[in-house]
Amino acid sequence: MATKNLELSQLTGDKTYTEIIFKQVWGKVEAYQAAHPQQQIFMMAFGDTTQPLSATVVQALVHAANRLGNPQTYTGYEDITGNPALKQAICANYYRQKISVELEPEEIFISDGAQSASVNIQDLFALDNRVAVQNPAYPSFVEGTLLAGRPLLNLPCHEQNNFVPKLPEERVDLIYLCFPNNPTGAVATREQLQAFVDYARNVQAVIIFDAVYSSFIQTTNIPRSIYEIEGAKECAIEIGSFSKWANFTGLRVGWCVIPKALTIKNTVPGELNHLWRIRHAIKFWGTANVAQQGAIAALSPVGQQECQGVVNYYLQNAGLLREGLAAIGLTCFGGIDSPFIWVKAFPSLSSWQFFDQLLDSTGIVGVPGCVFGDWGEGYLRLSALGRREDIQGAVEHLGRFATRA
Amino acid sequence: MATKNLELSQLTGDKTYTEIIFKQVWGKVEAYQAAHPQQQIFMMAFGDTTQPLSATVVQALVHAANRLGNPQTYTGYEDITGNPALKQAICANYYRQKISVELEPEEIFISDGAQSASVNIQDLFALDNRVAVQNPAYPSFVEGTLLAGRPLLNLPCHEQNNFVPKLPEERVDLIYLCFPNNPTGAVATREQLQAFVDYARNVQAVIIFDAVYSSFIQTTNIPRSIYEIEGAKECAIEIGSFSKWANFTGLRVGWCVIPKALTIKNTVPGELNHLWRIRHAIKFWGTANVAQQGAIAALSPVGQQECQGVVNYYLQNAGLLREGLAAIGLTCFGGIDSPFIWVKAFPSLSSWQFFDQLLDSTGIVGVPGCVFGDWGEGYLRLSALGRREDIQGAVEHLGRFATRA
Repeated sequence: MATKNLELSQLTGDKTYTEIIFKQVWGKVEAYQAAHPQQQIFMMAFGDTTQPLSATVVQALVHAANRLGNPQTYTGYEDITGNPALKQAICANYYRQKISVELEPEEIFISDGAQSASVNIQDLFALDNRVAVQNPAYPSFVEGTLLAGRPLLNLPCHEQNNFVPKLPEERVDLIYLCFPNNPTGAVATREQLQAFVDYARNVQAVIIFDAVYSSFIQTTNIPRSIYEIEGAKECAIEIGSFSKWANFTGLRVGWCVIPKALTIKNTVPGELNHLWRIRHAIKFWGTANVAQQGAIAALSPVGQQECQGVVNYYLQNAGLLREGLAAIGLTCFGGIDSPFIWVKAFPSLSSWQFFDQLLDSTGIVGVPGCVFGDWGEGYLRLSALGRREDIQGAVEHLGRFATRA
Repeated sequence: MATKNLELSQLTGDKTYTEIIFKQVWGKVEAYQAAHPQQQIFMMAFGDTTQPLSATVVQALVHAANRLGNPQTYTGYEDITGNPALKQAICANYYRQKISVELEPEEIFISDGAQSASVNIQDLFALDNRVAVQNPAYPSFVEGTLLAGRPLLNLPCHEQNNFVPKLPEERVDLIYLCFPNNPTGAVATREQLQAFVDYARNVQAVIIFDAVYSSFIQTTNIPRSIYEIEGAKECAIEIGSFSKWANFTGLRVGWCVIPKALTIKNTVPGELNHLWRIRHAIKFWGTANVAQQGAIAALSPVGQQECQGVVNYYLQNAGLLREGLAAIGLTCFGGIDSPFIWVKAFPSLSSWQFFDQLLDSTGIVGVPGCVFGDWGEGYLRLSALGRREDIQGAVEHLGRFATRA
């Protein structure tokens, strides 16, 4: 008699991020639209991209599609760890050229985006391993941990620590760190990351470093990769993605770095890398070959230039939004090295009250901070990944909120 | 102190299919090539496609790529359960039109191929659920079960039962069935499948039905979907794929059907479907949007016609190969409703001995049957998904094996 997965069934109802977004947030938006059919909605809730793929990427996709239609150039299964040229380009054009980090192509595993990779990576570790997660956090880290039944420890992030958590006070085995952070937009300094790496090496914990917003870093001396930190290759896995800087949200290409030097108890160098390859072969046969060709193009010199143009556009959006919010007396974090702005609710307002009032008076839709964890209570996340005209419209409408507040 | 996943680390060495293929099979091929540099190799080991995408599919990929490059038509994240038009097309153009089975789009979940879906689907069920797998079997069913730490029960498939197993004699919770079968090429009759469905309903087990080779069925009255069987919607999940019939191996699009009527202990209708949606949102954000547009095109009337042409080509390959093998006195199974031929080794030869002799004398490379499970010992799997000229060349070279044997 088959029985259901209890961890999974406990995540239903209003307990997961997407359920809350699609039911509660969307439900409120629909009710608002029904009540105010003339009012424009400014959707700044989702971290979804809105700008087209770069011309170079489109050209590569078209070329790849045509090659698949030609008997002379057709290819079937891609290498299970990803297109070799893409792994090479990530090492050469991203890590070496942009960040001065040396990695080998065998240390790169192409994924179908950071979402899957960051959660599935837990499969490398024993089920009783304790997982530390920033709070607030990108919800999948928490939900993936609960789904696997692993013990979860929160690392509070708040204004007092500039949204960079203290080292864990209890024993932990895995530590998720995300910088630039989703949802707070915070970044961590070299010294702060060094402290985490030193800690991880000391206790043989593994850091899972989510670096998907690294291309948004404008502040000098902020590390773009955990591997800029001494000793990180021995204790850290890094998750990267083409989603936000190359507008690949729908194309699904990301990567995961498992350095050969990474070791934990009872493992030898290279072993975790090898185990991840085995896991790929059993549970994942790679992401679309056409999309991988697009990713190679995005990493070409002209591709990177085009994509950086879009990143700058999103960052300008964020700047306009920050100014608009500040002008009505709201305190904002993030939005400088990140497309996310973490807005502090007016005193005595909860996240949901702030969400309601902002929607009611301006048509702007964010995500209540409490959805990202208890420590997000009293905040709202706004995404600047929208179209410029919507950002500008939202800023104009903010005046109505000021009047009411 | 992080510790490794013991189930995963027990699957290293020569214990997984891809490791055996890439090390042992490939190692022997390389050694043979070094010793016989003039001899042509006929690679018939992998189930990889070799024919180009259909013109309609290529056109759709190009169109989709261009739309992503246009600010007016760009889209970001796809629906997490898949493009609605694709789910609709699978219901209307595949299940209703080809098989006379009625399903709702909400019962379809688009995946990145059958590989991931067929293994990950175990996440719906409790870790102590016992899993029955055909032996020989597609290796991921076994490896995915071992990786999850679930108890495994073998269902022997051999000539005496026409490679269709008997009902389990011990209590099981999940039953993998694959028809047309990989590796044996066997199909199951309506009556045989009805017995499994009745059994599953009786003991509240769930059948995971792998139907990825259904488009290869030529024999009349052989079911193409488990849902052709009465009561199957209450006890079966079906896995489909575009890989083999539309040559999508590299594009990564498949699907999984979780009928709303499917229930197990302590669940209500629709609950498992809902849980799988939750699991998608946590661990998987869908496969490439461009590839999904290609899949929609493959299901259009002209797309299906073009793709069926390629299926027929592969089936003609299989026919030629079967004839060639029979001509030298070898007994073959499969290859009629399947691109796979299951060749019986000459008496007293093991799978690996047969593999070696065939390679040595003809340059033909198969997969030793024992790699698919103990009951595959004494057989060899050959794939007819190759190019016609290679199939013809292989058939000509078979004469050399005859002489030697």
